[in-house]
Formats: sequence, structure tokens, C-alpha cells
Amino acid sequence: MKRRQTDIRHAAAAMAARRDARTLMQVALGREKADLEIINARVVNVYSGEIIDDGRIAIKGEWIAAVGDLEPDRPPAGRVIDAAGRTVIPGLIDAHTHLAWYYTIEQFLPYAMADGTTTIVTETMEIYPVTGKAGLLAFLDSLRDQPVKLLATAPASVSISRRTDGMATETLRELVRRPDILGLGETYWQALLQTPDALLENFQATLRMAKTLEGHSAGARGARLSAYAASGISSCHEPIYADQAAERLRLGLYVMIREGSIRRDLAAIAGIRHRLADSRRLILVTDGVSPGDLISKGYMRPVVQKAIACGWEPVAAVQMATLNPATHFGLESVIGGIAPGRQADLVIIPDPYTITPDMVISRGRVIVENGRVGAVLRQNPYPRVCRQTVKLAREMRAADFEVRTDGDRAVTVRVMEMVTDLVTRAARVAMQPSGGVLLSDTTADILKVAAIDRSGVSGKRSVGFIRGFGLKAGALACSAAWDSSDIVVVGADAADMAQVVNRIARLGGGAVAGAQGEILAEVPMPLFGILSPEPMPVLADQLAAFNKAAAQLGAPFADPLLTLVTLTGAAIPFLRICEEGLVDLKTGRSLPLLVD
Amino acid sequence: MKRRQTDIRHAAAAMAARRDARTLMQVALGREKADLEIINARVVNVYSGEIIDDGRIAIKGEWIAAVGDLEPDRPPAGRVIDAAGRTVIPGLIDAHTHLAWYYTIEQFLPYAMADGTTTIVTETMEIYPVTGKAGLLAFLDSLRDQPVKLLATAPASVSISRRTDGMATETLRELVRRPDILGLGETYWQALLQTPDALLENFQATLRMAKTLEGHSAGARGARLSAYAASGISSCHEPIYADQAAERLRLGLYVMIREGSIRRDLAAIAGIRHRLADSRRLILVTDGVSPGDLISKGYMRPVVQKAIACGWEPVAAVQMATLNPATHFGLESVIGGIAPGRQADLVIIPDPYTITPDMVISRGRVIVENGRVGAVLRQNPYPRVCRQTVKLAREMRAADFEVRTDGDRAVTVRVMEMVTDLVTRAARVAMQPSGGVLLSDTTADILKVAAIDRSGVSGKRSVGFIRGFGLKAGALACSAAWDSSDIVVVGADAADMAQVVNRIARLGGGAVAGAQGEILAEVPMPLFGILSPEPMPVLADQLAAFNKAAAQLGAPFADPLLTLVTLTGAAIPFLRICEEGLVDLKTGRSLPLLVD
Repeated sequence: MKRRQTDIRHAAAAMAARRDARTLMQVALGREKADLEIINARVVNVYSGEIIDDGRIAIKGEWIAAVGDLEPDRPPAGRVIDAAGRTVIPGLIDAHTHLAWYYTIEQFLPYAMADGTTTIVTETMEIYPVTGKAGLLAFLDSLRDQPVKLLATAPASVSISRRTDGMATETLRELVRRPDILGLGETYWQALLQTPDALLENFQATLRMAKTLEGHSAGARGARLSAYAASGISSCHEPIYADQAAERLRLGLYVMIREGSIRRDLAAIAGIRHRLADSRRLILVTDGVSPGDLISKGYMRPVVQKAIACGWEPVAAVQMATLNPATHFGLESVIGGIAPGRQADLVIIPDPYTITPDMVISRGRVIVENGRVGAVLRQNPYPRVCRQTVKLAREMRAADFEVRTDGDRAVTVRVMEMVTDLVTRAARVAMQPSGGVLLSDTTADILKVAAIDRSGVSGKRSVGFIRGFGLKAGALACSAAWDSSDIVVVGADAADMAQVVNRIARLGGGAVAGAQGEILAEVPMPLFGILSPEPMPVLADQLAAFNKAAAQLGAPFADPLLTLVTLTGAAIPFLRICEEGLVDLKTGRSLPLLVD
Repeated sequence: MKRRQTDIRHAAAAMAARRDARTLMQVALGREKADLEIINARVVNVYSGEIIDDGRIAIKGEWIAAVGDLEPDRPPAGRVIDAAGRTVIPGLIDAHTHLAWYYTIEQFLPYAMADGTTTIVTETMEIYPVTGKAGLLAFLDSLRDQPVKLLATAPASVSISRRTDGMATETLRELVRRPDILGLGETYWQALLQTPDALLENFQATLRMAKTLEGHSAGARGARLSAYAASGISSCHEPIYADQAAERLRLGLYVMIREGSIRRDLAAIAGIRHRLADSRRLILVTDGVSPGDLISKGYMRPVVQKAIACGWEPVAAVQMATLNPATHFGLESVIGGIAPGRQADLVIIPDPYTITPDMVISRGRVIVENGRVGAVLRQNPYPRVCRQTVKLAREMRAADFEVRTDGDRAVTVRVMEMVTDLVTRAARVAMQPSGGVLLSDTTADILKVAAIDRSGVSGKRSVGFIRGFGLKAGALACSAAWDSSDIVVVGADAADMAQVVNRIARLGGGAVAGAQGEILAEVPMPLFGILSPEPMPVLADQLAAFNKAAAQLGAPFADPLLTLVTLTGAAIPFLRICEEGLVDLKTGRSLPLLVD
């Protein structure tokens, strides 16, 4: 009987609905032929924790029909792969990442596939602030029907900007009813503790649908971490030490160990394995991989390899990237292991200690063989709603970045001060206006920083000061500013700030570095103002060129673009800026530029 | 915003919908007072696998608000329990049992509660055959709003009788939409392999609702076990040796280790722990506990204690009865561990090796203290649909149990032969009619066996022969015949067979032993013809008296009533009887009484 699609709310149910159990049973019983058989394999069994020698796997369509002792009198399979003693592991799962990381799905996927990753759960927080629901749906559409499974979380929509903070519960409910949405994405703990009422209704809507609440509790501990967990949050990918990981495990949270371009925490957390009787609630995630790292390091493969290098047994390391995340998301009946009735997502590697895919099978199809990605990607149309998302009220001028004071008295200014590449704090700096205007001062490393709403809705912008950004000249801007619909710009020169922002508007989004009226480097991001359609190597070169230009202008950071785009973020302490002004994340409160 | 109740389909979602996260967070932060605090406890942390010394737990309403380092400046709690170094474990979960085991919920619960069991998942297969949906809903109603959580699986409805075999998918869909229904109950593997089309539509309806399919694969192995697993089945409670358990684990099934009145498999399976890197997919279950065992041994407490005695570390033993089953059923966000946001289901025991509850807390309320069960049970009305379920077309007479043949030639009869207390096989016995009638023969231990539909619908009955049942006189009958709506009766004397069946009809259900026109023992079961409302000790005495009478009549079995009621069952090999006649479970086919 055919049922309405809306009947199905869960990813596991949607997958199971496509599973023809009758046929799989016939194949297992040797009454129908398998499409594919793998023989002579050492099979990593994540359920029993064993490595099974002389393993056999029979596949029909997208699914595993039988493993172990296959029926002797079966018809010959469509194709037989002799693993010749090599090892087979389940397809890898990245349970927490950000796929809206400058590149498109089409450009990204070959790297993930080559690495043996067959299921990815991505945040969607980057898209919603700039395009709302329509753009988010287009982004979700770009995830479907690809050679590997791409699932998502709904955006928690925590922002320091009122324009992009929060989501109507009715909208969220629509999203979390979708089977491709596994839950609500990371909700920063400070926001939840500061304004629980604003968030708990959406938590409740998600939990009523039996879906998960992903967490982000960087730095929380003790009573406040308990309070965060009590809200129903079920994971955290932010611990950076073994102690932090242990505290989160004890509070019932799944601990996602992050090893990606934002941070690499595996080595520092690895010591936890000596304390744990089992590692079932540890999950390996990337939390996002940059174009450069995708090309030079890869995606999930190096993460699992590093877990082994850090001392985990291969089976445990594989579990952390397969069964454990599948269990966390309620997907263990369909993915995460090699057993009858599971999706035929398999990776053949030389031996259990060497996570180097010789072959990758996704949904029963060989997608990587002899080092070549063979699957055809679905090309997305990226409809109109994904484009032309950068809307300024008018061209910016140098005067738009002027900061005026009331007269020429010396004033105390709240300055964003870089403490690390990402962490800032509020410094108080005495400044002397000149003609009623506060100027940047490269000798004291005090630059202008501005956030400009680029949604065409509010037309707002705010301008402040930043210390420690290092530019001696020019300006850097980007339309992919975190948790906002802003272009964020830092500059030593107001005219250059206007220049790079205007250039971004003409590009329809991107990152631009300029100085003395010249464009030094630019990374066009015409999709959502966040993503580039360019091939990954081209994009990586553009990003590298941007960062090189930034460094030449004086930015002292490992990844100046990352430092720039996080200035609007709602999660990284302490002082942040949006189009409405400065916000202290510790309290969630707006702070005026001038100290009284 | 208030939502329709039907919005919620999952037990975890229904529980979370009652959780006031705002208040729990306030308690964790020390801004509101806890209702209950436990201090100085050794806390078994099932998530990290540790035992945490000096543990503290803050409880608000039904929920745990905080654990570990509580906020120092918090207001005093309503009650503080000083555990004085004793151990706290999560409330125990029985993930697979049969609560329709002669007793009512009200009589059963004090035993489960005293044993520290706070969540029970029961089959409902006993009820549906005799009363259909209406009675099943009444039974489900008897499970709600009790001091501990009672959840259920929908009946898989596999029967050898066409009348009680199967359930309309529309009915099943109604059931599995209910949040108190976790999935589809055990589906016997032989039935699935014999008639997949009859069952897979209901499997699909269950999986579309993101619920589980419980399994029953006694004796299956190799290709056939793979085929069973490929159907989407996710558990099995039938392995009786470590090898069988290992094979099921490898195929992705959760292995439920049974330790109850039907069988005790823990000791034989325990050796598996030497092979497993972790035991996350092992679950301890009772599969049903008899009144006598409830009184003399207890419920889940002795199961966990025995797991420790068999060599499991206490934390692993506790996980197998808490986190593991909670994870299997998608309940781990609300039960199965001691963490913020979980139901406050806690058991205080002397030390990790001694599973003897000093105190039991369920949903934040102390339900057992100083050995006394303090909670008030909800008394069920058991409406009309639960009563008068035994309907015979008319009074039975001795002649109704006559087996006539076509003339006086010797014939070969298919006789049910007892191989063990529960297993039968088809024996072929030459019999000589006398006046066209085949008679039982106590000297050869060949008795009559009959199954009589007592639903008032079909009016059917069948009569056959059984060898090895041992009765020298009289008859035994019971209306709680497995997988059917039958009264099953075995007798040495046709008049006594009629007598005991008629007596059951007058009682509205039950078990009756009689001989030479006298009733020797009887167990009235006026609810559904299956359950007695009597206090557990009274019921246990009645059952013991029945079995004593059966033994005195010659029945050689450990539990003659159990042997009797399983004669109609659809799972235990090989030859079974229902009101339509004999059925060979190996093939699923009906067999005529006489061999051609």
C-alpha cells in the first residue's frame, strides 16, 4: 500500500522504506542471485567488536543481504570481488560537519568519497541567516540523491544579531519533520543559559519528533554543564582535553572528538581511552574541513587513521566513525555496520591498521576503485534563491566607516582585542578624536572593524575598532560572516574598506582583500554569498591567495579569513560584532562602543 | 503551543514532552531548589563505564536535574538522602517480558518495584488472539500511569490457527503510532521464512514509524539467520549458547540473554564475554517470570546479580539492564542512566556487587524504602471486554472428544510426542479402532489432546492424540493456550475432558484439573481467560495445586501447565495443535490426523 511521503519522519524509516526485505531474504537463502559478493575479506564487525577472517558479504541492490556463511547452493553473483585477505570496514560517517564551507557539494563530494565516507551529517547554520527557509530548502535539495548519504540538522539559529537570531517554531517543526533532518543543530550553551525561553520551544518541537539536539558546550563545566545537559542536549563536539570529554560523557552526552580544520583535538583527548571500559559514546567528527586540507590531507580517512595512531584499537577507531554515530542518530538499523539489512556501504583497506581505501562501495555501488572516483554526482541547479543574496542599500563610501563622537574630548572606546586567532576580549582604549572623528591607528594596531547587513532587509551596519589584527594598510572583507547575514570587514583604511565591500557586492558574495584602491585578492562566492562553484583546487588557490594578501598586509593569523569571519560568531568568546553593534557573549548583551 | 497528542509517536518523545527543561536548568544552576538530593553515593555511570565516588544527584519532579559537582550556592533540597557510601545504579529495565502471565499488573508490580525495576517492555501477544483490538487496548490501558514505566510491543500475531494468525496492517499501524508501543513484538523466524508476504507489510509499517522489530530465532543459523536479519529484525532473546549469541551479534542483532521462568540461559551464554571487546549489544531480559518464581526468586534483581556471578563486571552487568536496552529502543535520551534530563529512576544498593535494593526511586518518587513498597498502584477497572471471553457454542460432552474412523481397519495416526517438556515431534502410531472409534490408551501413554476455539466465533475444535504426557486418569485443560484463542485439553478420559473444559467456561477462563467427575484443582482466570485477579501468593498456590494434581495424575513435567499451554504455540518445534487440527511448524503446513 502506498503511503503519503509525510508519513515518514525519520531517516532510518525512509531508508527502510526503500529496502525490499523479501528480495534480500531470497538472496540470503540462495534463491536469488546477489548483485555483488565480497569474499576472502577480513571483516571488521562493529557489533561484536571482532575482526572476522574469511568473511563473505552478499549484496543486492543498495543493501547487504547476508554475511558470514553464505548459502552454499546459491546462484553466482553478478560480480565477485576477491578481497584477497584485505580488510573491509563499514563506510565512514562524519556525524558533525559544516558542508557550507566555501565549496559546493559537487566539488566536495569526490574528496569525501575517495576517503571512504558514505554518510555525512551537516550543519545548515550558514545558509539560513542569509536566505531564510527558501535558501535552506535549496541547500537541502543539493544534498539529496548523491552517491553517498548526506543528512542534515536544522539550524539552531543562535546569532548576536536580532535579525538572524531564532527561528519560528512552526518553521522548525516543518524542518524537523523531514526525514533528511536528524535533529536540531548545535546550540551554543551560553545562549541557552542566557535566554532559555527563546530556545526551549524549538528544543521541545524537536524532541517531540524524537530527534536529537546537538550541542556546543565549549568551556562549560560543573553546574552549568549539568544545566545545559538537562535541557535535552545529547552531544558535544567541543571538548579539547580528556577531562572535558570525560565530564561530558558522565553527563550522558555523546562526545564528538573533533579533528578538522577548525581544531584538531584527537591527540589531546586520546588519553581518555585508558579510563573508559568502552568507547561506545565517542564519535569522530571533522566539524568542517577547509578546501586546502581536503586536498592535502583528505576528509575522514586521516581522522580514523589518527585515532589508531593515538592508540585506539582499529575496531574501536572504526566504531567511533561508524556504529557509534549511527547509534547516536537512531540510524543503527540501516547504517554503521556490516550486517544483513544494512546499506551496503563498505570500504576495502589493506589491513585494519591502514585506513587507505582501495575500494569504496556506497549503497551497493562501487564508487571508488583503483583510486578513481567513479560515481556520477548529481549537479545542482542552485536556483535563483541561492544567488544574488548580497544586497546593500547602496555603494559603500569611506565615510560610511567613520566613527563620530560628540565633540573632541578624549573618549574610552571598547575595542575588540584579539587574544588568540579566534578568541577576542573587550579592551578599553583611550582615543582622541580628530575633528569629531575617531581614526584607526596602525602604529598602535588599532583598526576599524565593521559588520554590514547584506540581506537588503535591515540596511544596518555598525563600525568599531579592533586591536591585534595587524593590518598595516588596506582592508579585508567577507560575506561568509558566521551566524549572521553580514559582510564583515576589517581595515586600516576606510576607502579600502568601502572598496572591498563594494567588490563583494558586485561578486554576489565572497572574500576580498584590497589596499590603496587596488584589489589584491578575491574569492568569489556567488552562491548564498558563502559558496564558490569553482573546482576545489581553484578555490583553494584563491583562498590561499587571499590569506597571502592578508598576511602581506600584516595579518598575523594562521588563517586570516577564518579569523575575519568568526568576528560575528555567537559562540567563540568574548566580544563580537554584528550590524547592530558590539555584543558581549558572556552576558549576551549589547555594549555601546564608547564606555561612559 | 499545545499540539495534538497524535503528534507524538515515540515513548522518548512522550516523556520529553513532560520534561520542564527550564525548571531543571534552574535547579542545576542552583536558582531553584531540588525536590530530592542524593549525596555521598558511589554512582554507577553507565555512559563512561565508571563508578564515581562521592557522587551527588539533584532531582526535580520526575527528572534528574544535575549530577556531579552541584552548584555550591544552591537552596536546600526538599529531601536529602545520604547514601553513606552506598552505590546508586539506574533503575533496571526488562526489555522483553510477558506480563500477561496469569497475574494482573497490579499484583505483579510490587515484585518488580521491590527489585528495582523501573521500566518494563512487555509483549501483548497473549491478549490479541482472544479479544482482538478492543481487549488489547484495555490491556494497554492497564499499563499506563503506574509507579513504574510499562511499555509494550504490538503483537506480531503469528499463530498456527488461521483465525488468530495475522493482523490487518491498518490495525497495526494504529498500534505502532502509539508512543507506548515501541515496536512489533517477537515474530517467529520460521513463520517469516515460510510466509514472508504475510508479515513483511506489517514489518514495513513498523519500520516506517521508526520502531523496532523484535525477533525470535530459536535454532536458526547460517543463511537462514542472515535472511531473518535481512528482514529488519533487530533483536533475539532465544540464543541458549555463547556461539548462538555470537552469531546473532555479528549479524547486527541485539542479543537479549534470557533468565526467567521459561529458560535460564545466562550461565550458558556467559562465556561470550571473553570474546567481546564490549558488551553494548547484550541485554538482560526475563522473557516472563511465573508467580512462583516472582515470590521465591524475584524479578530483575536476581538476573543482574547472576550476571555478576557469571563474571561480568558490575558496571557491564548494570549496563546490560539499563543503557543497553534503552539504546536498543531509542530511549537512551530519557532512561537508562544517571544524568541530567533523564528520568529519576534510581536504585540504592549496598555495593556494586550486591544487587539488593535498599531504596528504589521511580520518576523522582521513593517507591521502595526499608524493604516496603510505598507507591500506590493504579487499580484497573478491567472493563467488560476483558471479561467473559470464554465462549463455547454449547456444553462439551464426552462424545465431543471422540475420534471416529472410516470403519474398523487399523490406521496410522499422527501422534504428538513429547520430546522434552516443551518440544514435540510427529510420531506415527498404528491404532486399532473399536466400533469405528479411536480410543486413548494409558498403558501405551497415548492420550487425547484437543484444542477448542473459545472465542465464540468459529466454534471449531480438533481432537488428536499425544504420547508421553503421562496422565493415568482424568484431564487437564487451560484457556491460556499460546498463540491462539483456544482452550487446550489433554485427557485420559473423554468425560473428564468435557468436565474440565466446561468448568473453565463457567469460570470465564482458567486452568482446571479433574478426574472421575471431580474437579481436583482449578485456577480461575476470569480476565481475558488468561489472567487471575488474585493476590500473587494465592495465585501461586492455585497454580502449584494444579501442577500437583497434574503430577498426581501422572504428568512427568517440571511445570505441567506450561507444557499444556504450549501445545498450541507457533514457535516451539515441531508438531502443534489448534482448533483446526495439527500443524507441522517446520513447514507451517496442516497435517491430517491419519497418515494415508
